Amino acid sequence: MVTRGRELYQGKAKVIFETEEPNTYWVSYKDSLTAGNGQKKAQETGKGSLNNIISSYIFKYLNDMGIGTHYIKKISDHEMLVKKVDIIPVEVVVRNIAAGSICTRLGIKEKRVLKKPLLEFFYKNDSLGDPLISENHIELMKLATKDQVMQMEGMALAINKILKELFLNLNLKLVDFKLEFGIDTNGTLLLADEVSPDTCRLWDVNTGKSFDKDLFRKDMGSISEGYIEVINRLKGRLGESEI
Amino acid sequence: MVTRGRELYQGKAKVIFETEEPNTYWVSYKDSLTAGNGQKKAQETGKGSLNNIISSYIFKYLNDMGIGTHYIKKISDHEMLVKKVDIIPVEVVVRNIAAGSICTRLGIKEKRVLKKPLLEFFYKNDSLGDPLISENHIELMKLATKDQVMQMEGMALAINKILKELFLNLNLKLVDFKLEFGIDTNGTLLLADEVSPDTCRLWDVNTGKSFDKDLFRKDMGSISEGYIEVINRLKGRLGESEI
Ligand SMILES: Nc1ncnc2c1ncn2[C@@H]1O[C@H](COP(=O)(O)OP(=O)(O)O)[C@@H](O)[C@H]1O
Ligand SMILES: Nc1ncnc2c1ncn2[C@@H]1O[C@H](COP(=O)(O)OP(=O)(O)O)[C@@H](O)[C@H]1O
Ligand SMILES: [Mg+2]
Ligand SMILES: [Mg+2]
Repeated sequence: MVTRGRELYQGKAKVIFETEEPNTYWVSYKDSLTAGNGQKKAQETGKGSLNNIISSYIFKYLNDMGIGTHYIKKISDHEMLVKKVDIIPVEVVVRNIAAGSICTRLGIKEKRVLKKPLLEFFYKNDSLGDPLISENHIELMKLATKDQVMQMEGMALAINKILKELFLNLNLKLVDFKLEFGIDTNGTLLLADEVSPDTCRLWDVNTGKSFDKDLFRKDMGSISEGYIEVINRLKGRLGESEI
Repeated sequence: MVTRGRELYQGKAKVIFETEEPNTYWVSYKDSLTAGNGQKKAQETGKGSLNNIISSYIFKYLNDMGIGTHYIKKISDHEMLVKKVDIIPVEVVVRNIAAGSICTRLGIKEKRVLKKPLLEFFYKNDSLGDPLISENHIELMKLATKDQVMQMEGMALAINKILKELFLNLNLKLVDFKLEFGIDTNGTLLLADEVSPDTCRLWDVNTGKSFDKDLFRKDMGSISEGYIEVINRLKGRLGESEI
């Protein structure tokens, strides 16, 4: 049995703990909500658990599909065990439909379906506001090697294919999502962090309703109700026991 | 003799006129100064002429070095004839030393010498504030073809090599500069717009003093004195007659 050790660091959405296993971290999902790089803040009891449940399911699904992720197992409603990685400070965003920052930044119409998935890189740096960067900036700042960039691109597009299909089966459009990658102690690039409605945009195929953090960003309704709906659709597809 | 025709459009720094030749435009350099996407404004008598003189010299020099530019000839102190092009709405920035927006955007220390030239693309769109973009955005918005992007990259780096050396001979460091490209009526990609102290950063090798638009942006001294110094150094190298 792995036990929880010293707290290592705490972000806006999760707390990372050591365990007695050298390469295993204990992740505790928090109930805090932030948007606009921490400018808008709130608490929602149970939000951490909902994200942990969804993230666990998605990581397991991706592992089964041959995508290397940091996920080891769920240990409680709001906690999971993961492989320790060195996080690459590059947020990889994949977009299938225009929404959010890309619309204001580039004047692209909200809801425009993109002919092919758009990949964007952002420098993961809270004090700079996570600015958009290109591969040239990644090279200049030595955030990742060229090989790692190529691998992240390939994995991000593969993950997009898999998750688009998964969510479509739940009658949800995967509009866009943000990924973080890291290098484990063997030097392998793994998908890390979380994949949850906090980090994805999910729209109901029929009504267009959001079941993601836009509920909070835009004060459009209850976060919990939206996230629970995602879990219920996963359960409907899978049977109660698997989730 | 070409004569000036109808005014076609007017930007922040230049006015473009038709001529009776179908593929030839008449460019008149204005004395207006803007910075921060037009937020800071001023007039400086003679500034347009200084930029036209410097730009004419540089375009001719680049033409002679085998780089295709829109430049045909200088027609007066503040006017030149150019080939009409369809401007690609992508500003290509080349940086040799960190200065300006990249420092605040990415937390890079001012004056840091970059190991290799950094290329950046910006979407030329005043109302969006000329946002940074990547090749993926260029493709999505169909601003240029992949071939054109590759060609612009290659030309920008070649131009950087040529101009770095030219300015170093004038005891000036070419810190960074912005280029615009366009497609002429034969479908050829040409360097267009202007190459002047309004669009370059030039630092004295010995004193580090700026001889460019930063004099205006940062209220560091007289624009005209700085730009005249650049012209004087060009004259010193070339003999009065050539400029
Ligand atoms: N497997 C992992 N190993 C090490 N760090 C991780 C792993 N997965 C995620 N992290 C990091 O844990 C931190 C806490 O997550 P989070 O609360 O989402 O932080 P943030 O406020 O940066 O979004 C982040 O820096 C994230 O990159
Ligand atoms: N050879 C050319 N053919 C057509 N348009 C050009 C050419 N060279 C420059 N232009 C365009 O002329 C316009 C006026 O220039 P400028 O005053 O610098 O405008 P801006 O305010 O956009 O910087 C710009 O849109 C520029 O791209
Ligand atoms: Mg996070
Ligand atoms: Mg201009």
